[in-house]
Amino acid sequence: MTTAVISNNKMETFEKLESAVRSYSRGWPTVFEKSKGYKLWDVDGKEYIDFFAGAGTLNYGHNDTNMQEKIIEYIQQDGILHSLDMGTTPRKEFLETFQEVILTPRNLDYKVMFPGPTGTNSVESALKIARKVTGRDTVISFTNAFHGMTIGSLSVTGNSFKRHGAGVPLHHTVSMPFDDYVEDQNSIAYIERFLEDSGSGVALPAAIILETVQGEGGINAARMDWLKKIERICRRWDILLIVDDIQAGCGRTGTFFSFEPAGIKPDIVCLSKSIGGVGLPMALTLIKPEYDKWGPGEHNGTFRGNNLAFIAAKEALRFWETDQFSSEIQDKAKLYKVKIDKIIAKYPELNGEARGRGLMQGIAVHVDDLASKICTKAFERGLILETSGPNDEVVKFLPPLIIDEEGIMKGMAILDDSIAQVLSK
Amino acid sequence: MTTAVISNNKMETFEKLESAVRSYSRGWPTVFEKSKGYKLWDVDGKEYIDFFAGAGTLNYGHNDTNMQEKIIEYIQQDGILHSLDMGTTPRKEFLETFQEVILTPRNLDYKVMFPGPTGTNSVESALKIARKVTGRDTVISFTNAFHGMTIGSLSVTGNSFKRHGAGVPLHHTVSMPFDDYVEDQNSIAYIERFLEDSGSGVALPAAIILETVQGEGGINAARMDWLKKIERICRRWDILLIVDDIQAGCGRTGTFFSFEPAGIKPDIVCLSKSIGGVGLPMALTLIKPEYDKWGPGEHNGTFRGNNLAFIAAKEALRFWETDQFSSEIQDKAKLYKVKIDKIIAKYPELNGEARGRGLMQGIAVHVDDLASKICTKAFERGLILETSGPNDEVVKFLPPLIIDEEGIMKGMAILDDSIAQVLSK
Amino acid sequence: MTTAVISNNKMETFEKLESAVRSYSRGWPTVFEKSKGYKLWDVDGKEYIDFFAGAGTLNYGHNDTNMQEKIIEYIQQDGILHSLDMGTTPRKEFLETFQEVILTPRNLDYKVMFPGPTGTNSVESALKIARKVTGRDTVISFTNAFHGMTIGSLSVTGNSFKRHGAGVPLHHTVSMPFDDYVEDQNSIAYIERFLEDSGSGVALPAAIILETVQGEGGINAARMDWLKKIERICRRWDILLIVDDIQAGCGRTGTFFSFEPAGIKPDIVCLSKSIGGVGLPMALTLIKPEYDKWGPGEHNGTFRGNNLAFIAAKEALRFWETDQFSSEIQDKAKLYKVKIDKIIAKYPELNGEARGRGLMQGIAVHVDDLASKICTKAFERGLILETSGPNDEVVKFLPPLIIDEEGIMKGMAILDDSIAQVLSK
Amino acid sequence: MTTAVISNNKMETFEKLESAVRSYSRGWPTVFEKSKGYKLWDVDGKEYIDFFAGAGTLNYGHNDTNMQEKIIEYIQQDGILHSLDMGTTPRKEFLETFQEVILTPRNLDYKVMFPGPTGTNSVESALKIARKVTGRDTVISFTNAFHGMTIGSLSVTGNSFKRHGAGVPLHHTVSMPFDDYVEDQNSIAYIERFLEDSGSGVALPAAIILETVQGEGGINAARMDWLKKIERICRRWDILLIVDDIQAGCGRTGTFFSFEPAGIKPDIVCLSKSIGGVGLPMALTLIKPEYDKWGPGEHNGTFRGNNLAFIAAKEALRFWETDQFSSEIQDKAKLYKVKIDKIIAKYPELNGEARGRGLMQGIAVHVDDLASKICTKAFERGLILETSGPNDEVVKFLPPLIIDEEGIMKGMAILDDSIAQVLSK
Repeated sequence: MTTAVISNNKMETFEKLESAVRSYSRGWPTVFEKSKGYKLWDVDGKEYIDFFAGAGTLNYGHNDTNMQEKIIEYIQQDGILHSLDMGTTPRKEFLETFQEVILTPRNLDYKVMFPGPTGTNSVESALKIARKVTGRDTVISFTNAFHGMTIGSLSVTGNSFKRHGAGVPLHHTVSMPFDDYVEDQNSIAYIERFLEDSGSGVALPAAIILETVQGEGGINAARMDWLKKIERICRRWDILLIVDDIQAGCGRTGTFFSFEPAGIKPDIVCLSKSIGGVGLPMALTLIKPEYDKWGPGEHNGTFRGNNLAFIAAKEALRFWETDQFSSEIQDKAKLYKVKIDKIIAKYPELNGEARGRGLMQGIAVHVDDLASKICTKAFERGLILETSGPNDEVVKFLPPLIIDEEGIMKGMAILDDSIAQVLSK
Repeated sequence: MTTAVISNNKMETFEKLESAVRSYSRGWPTVFEKSKGYKLWDVDGKEYIDFFAGAGTLNYGHNDTNMQEKIIEYIQQDGILHSLDMGTTPRKEFLETFQEVILTPRNLDYKVMFPGPTGTNSVESALKIARKVTGRDTVISFTNAFHGMTIGSLSVTGNSFKRHGAGVPLHHTVSMPFDDYVEDQNSIAYIERFLEDSGSGVALPAAIILETVQGEGGINAARMDWLKKIERICRRWDILLIVDDIQAGCGRTGTFFSFEPAGIKPDIVCLSKSIGGVGLPMALTLIKPEYDKWGPGEHNGTFRGNNLAFIAAKEALRFWETDQFSSEIQDKAKLYKVKIDKIIAKYPELNGEARGRGLMQGIAVHVDDLASKICTKAFERGLILETSGPNDEVVKFLPPLIIDEEGIMKGMAILDDSIAQVLSK
Repeated sequence: MTTAVISNNKMETFEKLESAVRSYSRGWPTVFEKSKGYKLWDVDGKEYIDFFAGAGTLNYGHNDTNMQEKIIEYIQQDGILHSLDMGTTPRKEFLETFQEVILTPRNLDYKVMFPGPTGTNSVESALKIARKVTGRDTVISFTNAFHGMTIGSLSVTGNSFKRHGAGVPLHHTVSMPFDDYVEDQNSIAYIERFLEDSGSGVALPAAIILETVQGEGGINAARMDWLKKIERICRRWDILLIVDDIQAGCGRTGTFFSFEPAGIKPDIVCLSKSIGGVGLPMALTLIKPEYDKWGPGEHNGTFRGNNLAFIAAKEALRFWETDQFSSEIQDKAKLYKVKIDKIIAKYPELNGEARGRGLMQGIAVHVDDLASKICTKAFERGLILETSGPNDEVVKFLPPLIIDEEGIMKGMAILDDSIAQVLSK
Repeated sequence: MTTAVISNNKMETFEKLESAVRSYSRGWPTVFEKSKGYKLWDVDGKEYIDFFAGAGTLNYGHNDTNMQEKIIEYIQQDGILHSLDMGTTPRKEFLETFQEVILTPRNLDYKVMFPGPTGTNSVESALKIARKVTGRDTVISFTNAFHGMTIGSLSVTGNSFKRHGAGVPLHHTVSMPFDDYVEDQNSIAYIERFLEDSGSGVALPAAIILETVQGEGGINAARMDWLKKIERICRRWDILLIVDDIQAGCGRTGTFFSFEPAGIKPDIVCLSKSIGGVGLPMALTLIKPEYDKWGPGEHNGTFRGNNLAFIAAKEALRFWETDQFSSEIQDKAKLYKVKIDKIIAKYPELNGEARGRGLMQGIAVHVDDLASKICTKAFERGLILETSGPNDEVVKFLPPLIIDEEGIMKGMAILDDSIAQVLSK
């Protein structure tokens, strides 16, 4: 009881002065002060293991020492902080490094657009350019997709609570079944039928937009074969393929781009979150040169030139100079999978189901409200993780990619304990 | 000629790797490296006077020393950099300082929402909550308004090039004449007539959104009396008044909020750009408590917790602890006005017209392409300023508010000289 | 009281079996049985003078003897009744007569489209073809316009009750002020300003649609000069001009087309109501040959071939073989105007205002509900006339064009008496 | 060749004066003059057997003698021809007869709305009231549905040519697979999954609208079991079920309403085409009393009171006083099916597939353009029938229900012969 009171006092400023829209500060009612690697500490000095990574923004961990140093050095030299899309040295160096370390080795040819520093801005720009170059307006998105909160991105987002928040109907989009969305049914056949029939009521779309692993939608990982077939549909009907790699990209699934194992080449790729290295706002839209038909300033924004982010972003790309980082992620992913399977087996009451790919995994808990209770209990015990899915039914594992075995084991132990506690009630 | 070749080489990376959407780097073809106060330097060591201020983002000047120190100190302490909307110390301190220094002294009562770090995100959230609390979908915006590039914000933006870029029709909005938009016509009478008549074809709107000075639309400053009448219309028909103070706020016109001299109290206020102090991405949506009807997470975003921005933002609020800063801005504004009037008088060929308010002024040049040519010439001579207006017909003055008399005089001298050069051809 | 009970019994079938949407049968609670010329009789043998003409559908009066005979003869010969858009003799003869009697003498060149037998179908087809040939989607309509109840036509209709009935937002249209809609303001200047400014927020429209006299919207007659200026705007910006002559056409204002006195040539004209001669469902869309870019069947409908209507329609065109009918209408119109002015002068309590043109006139009564009370009282006394306007504030005079002086005098006497009665309460 | 020239001369008026939108007069290039029962004659006296029935409008045959007499008698008595929704004797008698002969015996309870005399008007009114009573805006329609050409009805229509003709995007609708639309896939499972998942991107709809047999979409007959399941979905999620029975109703499939054999009770039923008995424009919207929440005049239209149609409609209902008519239709349907199967067997080159139900049958011909060629050849030989389906791939049999065995045999012989001719080329 005493704890609760203290906790309430701690949060008083937020409750009194901030809007009712605040969410994470409700589930994790403390004031955080410090962070390093895969750990955070609050103002009371309590330590937390991070299985959340800023919703996928802190793939390289908190306060990477190298990035910190480069940022500080730049500030001390009176480097340009804000530059819209003017030329600056950090922008130039980031562009060159991205080309050299990421695009060229993967045999990818994209023009880089800085669309404003948020993921939703990248998605909005991707939809715009796809509509412009095709002259069509419809976009196919998928069930349980999440692409952002501004009206364009919301229109391709599945979640009804978030859609309803728009306050206006959302148009120019068709929602199609993601991979094995409907049991025993073939979503590819379904999509193809609608496209081939001129009487289907679904217009030939400008683009198909997808996440290879749906992060907010319940850690639904598309099969590589399904992704290949979607790409084939795009090629057959001359539809642009947009991969929203905002959460699943930047190494989250084991490769820099999440779509690499499928061997596909999207026409447009959206990146944000961890692209800024250390959690600073930044986003990119990658566009195949033949589709880069923008007029100058046709999509713009004030914070396209966040130079501190460019500096950290360039340092982050160093992780990708060799294959080592990628193979480490995959090893850790296997370890997670083993632990998750054990937990599911240990607690049949969860009616649990393992989901995901790479370091983007989850346990779907098919009992109402249980996933939320588990996360709450874990927070109390020093583990930060959140739920996902249309009914918050999935416990989601999204640790910094630099987490070590000790961190994983410790976090999983807290989780195990939390589940036991919740189920014992 | 040699210079041109060098310049081209300098920009090669951007031209080769970046999308065709880039704009400022075309008009100002150099690579910037350093900045302080109201000055920038490029990689060749050339100095520029800044009459642009990051499009209104650098009201407190480049690299404010105090803000630099606080940011560096925070990073060195491994402070949380990225926190979504979790509680952190900088968020808490910013909220408290904003309440104490800005809201309370102005007798304003708003809940503070962090909607994502861009202006357009603030506008999107404002439109959403206005639609939610009223249950209506139409929003009235104004001719030559600019509110952002995501679909919701674009729908209340006037510029046809930018609207067309949406690739889809933009709905749920009605464009009304801004102040004296139609010569010799009373825009208030029009708006009232449309609202009072149930057969007008214009539905009762959820909100009226406006900029008190239209920055992108041509430095059109609304008269205080017109703003008062708009507020009266909102009260009479129970319409929410949204002031988009993203460019005109944070002291740009002489007071913290641009609407203060009109004595109005908007229901919702959008802030971004200079709120982050030193050019770091940040935005706020201020909502009267009675309209703060959000569900938790109903509008969210990854970069709502840019703690470096919170730290700089808090320091920036210190400028507002006394009235001195405000009165200095107004003095500088007068100086600008004097210089502008002189230039207009000196060069009748410009067919010039003075516009604006505070340190947000402009010269409308009623000769095709002339404004752009002047800005290009000024850049060559070390002055950064851009055009504005539907046909880029306005030379826009938007210096850092901390500029001194020397800076103003020097910049204006370059401008004078540039105009002379352009006209002599 | 006894009367009321009897009347209720008479209406029982409608009240019990018909939908709540019924309207005229509420205001005129009787069962009509017979009609001829400008008179109707109900099942009780009560006689009514018709100042309503089926809302402008019975311009040639009820049961024109000649039309009756031709219809009966056709049926007796087993003529084709229903033919979609197949070739039939009545369709052929109507087309030839319409060309010869109406189009050629007026030097008008239009292709004739049969869009389905209702006015709203004509409007929907006009909007479609205008959007197709221009490739634009916006249509400018006017305050207090009424163009029909299907979604396309509703979107260009002003009335908020009817718009709200759509159940979905209505888009792709901009409502502009009709003629002198806002007192002392120049609507032409207003419209031109929005069109010439690329930052106005109003896209270049496909078409401007208007009624020269707004029937449902309050009998607002546009000045000829205003119509000319609207046509000039259309020519200047290459916008199609659509005149919806469904209610004001077919002689209602004194000439066959209502726009003839303005000397304008619309690109598209919508006709319905009295085009079918004797009240049978029929509609036309007239399209300048250069804009007749339909694909076969691109707009169709089951009842495009109502041959009984074609037969009556052809007979009706005989009225237009000389100028006599037109000049008679204008004489009667003058008589109405004299009587209306007298009534307004006689009853200052009405705060009355004369409106309209030709045999489409009205008295705007600026006292709440008074117009409706007057119409109710008149019905009891054997005069059928209805209200119009956004608040049902206009008593509307729309007699069959074939009415004679006796009918006018008798009807006006009943009206005078009814007003006296209503005011005396 | 001579014939062709004559034929061209005959059609000259239509080609010269009518819009390019005309369609049937292109496929059947003659001028029709007379008709009776299941036969038509053109101006040259050539006789045609009618397997088309005015696209389902002439179920009771051409010029039914009894209906002719009643209509003539009414006209001769100066009966009211046009009455909007005023009370008239024919309206009253139709309402009472419809209640007595159709609704009461089938244990159906509907309020009758007269929405304007066309099918599309009935559909528009159905969508409006469904949106009003549920407060939702989305409507689920089906692949290859056809519901009309006005914007509201087009939005629930599948055909891309017709949708494209709208000139504006069509919204507020979701197209779902009709019955066995996707081979080997369960459309019910798809629909249920989309509805039960709050993250599906498909909002809870106001209504589901369907045709039990899709006439324009290719004579696709839904299975009774599928219809039952759709009704169950409607009940489970509180969605209104609208059956568009405009083409399949009025006995076309063997029962008055096409949905009777499925044992379902739609919330709203749209009727038009044959409801007017002899081809006169008329439509009804039947609404369960609990959903009849219209305000007076909220949906209206000029030609809601086509009294000649009411008179014929009342006579037509006599056909339904006993079960005989229904059982005759079913016998004829069987005869058609036998003949169709024979033709498919006889001409394997057609790759033919039998479709449909009752006297609404078809042969899908899976060879490009063959169906159209067959219909053209048949017309030359005196048989009128048209194609259907997204690619005009279905030869459609839609004879008047009163056709006799001789007519069927004779028509089928012509068809057989026409196919032989077409295939022999």
